[in-house]
Amino acid sequence: MSAPIIAIDAMGGDFGPRNIVQASLACLTATPSLHLVLVGQAPLIEELVSGHEAVDRSRLRVIHASEAIAMDERPSQALRGKPDSSMRVALELVASGQAQACVSAGNTGALMALSRFVLKTLPGIDRPAMIAAIPTRSGHCQLLDLGANVDCSAEALYQFAVMGSVLAEILGVATPRVALLNVGTEDIKGNQQVKRAAGLLQSASGLNYIGYVEGDGLYRGEADVVVCDGFVGNVLLKSSEGLATMIAARIETLFQRNLLSRAVGALALPLLKRLQTDLAPARHNGASLLGLQGVVVKSHGSASVSGFQSAIQRAIVESGENLPQRLRGRLETVFQGGRT
Amino acid sequence: MSAPIIAIDAMGGDFGPRNIVQASLACLTATPSLHLVLVGQAPLIEELVSGHEAVDRSRLRVIHASEAIAMDERPSQALRGKPDSSMRVALELVASGQAQACVSAGNTGALMALSRFVLKTLPGIDRPAMIAAIPTRSGHCQLLDLGANVDCSAEALYQFAVMGSVLAEILGVATPRVALLNVGTEDIKGNQQVKRAAGLLQSASGLNYIGYVEGDGLYRGEADVVVCDGFVGNVLLKSSEGLATMIAARIETLFQRNLLSRAVGALALPLLKRLQTDLAPARHNGASLLGLQGVVVKSHGSASVSGFQSAIQRAIVESGENLPQRLRGRLETVFQGGRT
Repeated sequence: MSAPIIAIDAMGGDFGPRNIVQASLACLTATPSLHLVLVGQAPLIEELVSGHEAVDRSRLRVIHASEAIAMDERPSQALRGKPDSSMRVALELVASGQAQACVSAGNTGALMALSRFVLKTLPGIDRPAMIAAIPTRSGHCQLLDLGANVDCSAEALYQFAVMGSVLAEILGVATPRVALLNVGTEDIKGNQQVKRAAGLLQSASGLNYIGYVEGDGLYRGEADVVVCDGFVGNVLLKSSEGLATMIAARIETLFQRNLLSRAVGALALPLLKRLQTDLAPARHNGASLLGLQGVVVKSHGSASVSGFQSAIQRAIVESGENLPQRLRGRLETVFQGGRT
Repeated sequence: MSAPIIAIDAMGGDFGPRNIVQASLACLTATPSLHLVLVGQAPLIEELVSGHEAVDRSRLRVIHASEAIAMDERPSQALRGKPDSSMRVALELVASGQAQACVSAGNTGALMALSRFVLKTLPGIDRPAMIAAIPTRSGHCQLLDLGANVDCSAEALYQFAVMGSVLAEILGVATPRVALLNVGTEDIKGNQQVKRAAGLLQSASGLNYIGYVEGDGLYRGEADVVVCDGFVGNVLLKSSEGLATMIAARIETLFQRNLLSRAVGALALPLLKRLQTDLAPARHNGASLLGLQGVVVKSHGSASVSGFQSAIQRAIVESGENLPQRLRGRLETVFQGGRT
């Protein structure tokens, strides 16, 4: 793997550049071959960098961008009204080949719109999808879309299924079981988009499409790739995170009742904390925007320093694996083999 | 409360009438004022009843219905093609005043279609919604729709919000906080239906509409009533159930690792089992079809005997509380006060 260069949108997220700079410097220390480009308010970033010791400036560039995109800004405004935003400049570094990946904790809708505009989608893909792995009883499952597309056509769901399957293959699953998330497993169940997507997937070649899976089947590990629209995926991910947190809090309370239970609670709590982390991949590990001609990783807006570090790590892996190029190759095969 | 008469669709569900008959007889024993009407294949039901001892036949009628609706049958077929189905005959007993409520574990779509046709909806309500309470960090929240309506207009979401609020009031919440489930809390977030429903709710009088809530906010207890379309609600409910089961299994494994942890695991497991029950209200307690001119409770298709008993119990409470009449009264006030 050659030395990766990652462009960082230093102005995105709920907490401003402080956490992002700190996470970036930690990654530079942890990965000696890594080069980073921090994009945003250069004086502010330089000041934050100068507060840290022993920074290898030969691997750290700062590029000034005069604008920042607010978390509640409309994507259309971010696209048309801010040509010099930190997010856009970071993406342009990927488009021009000066960086291999972009990481941002900023406005999801704006990142989606700008990524499509600056990087373009892969052939056959209309809209990128956000994907992350969630834990199941038998391992993990790749869930997409997680919120980048609140409304999805049947064609979009079909494309997500193909992309998810290819990603799962790249990550080592031999013949990924691909399913559509639905409210029942019978043919008559679901809305029109899901039913039509099922028809497209049934006639697709080179895909191990196994049919519908329900919310409980997902956690039972019935599929390796689960496809849904971004509204449903976002609600599923966030409610799972909330539920895991609630269960952990209830068990914590239970274990505080007496000395014995307090002593033994220590046994269960690390497992629960680990589960909570697993269940909030977007918050802790970043989620990928899949289907673009470049690697883009979205970190959670309120990610901690270690959360943003994980997102950078994910970008290093995906660019090292040449994910977009491999995705393009496999997509061509699947689309040629199936419907045209 | 006068003696309630509940009509039971004895042929619905995944396991046939055996569990349903057993649950019905257990309810008759537990509630001495209760009268039940079992509707379905009379010879089969009579045979199952005769296998039990000490049945008070003065409180148990069996009404023959020559047809049964399959779990995967299209609602339109159930509506037009089966005039003598057990589900329909049971609902007709409610419509004619011979019973105060109907309980079915059968095909949800058919129950929805037949309930609307036989019982009609309340004034101002286009489509009934399925509602159940789910646990939160601070208590419970009423979630609707849980799967009766996979696609919902903004107007439908608005009506669900009003109905959910009224039910929460009836159940004792003084000024229920009503929220729309969304992928973010900013105004620009969400699909068109949700954004338009927000507009309708903002201008509604007599409602404590608090805005958007996300999946994690729901479990944090940010609202007393959470409104979404049936696709999203169904996925949320079933994935929560699946996740709770998965967490319980993982903790069970953890506690089996050594003697000490095995001994102490007993402390945590009852809590987890309780949580699992709480998180599967449709499976364990039944869910109500809200907005009809009559009480209809849907038991889960694979409900256990105790699960079906809980559904009958719910029907007893709702008919005792005159839920449809009280709902009608409050709906008139809200709809008159707000938009016309």
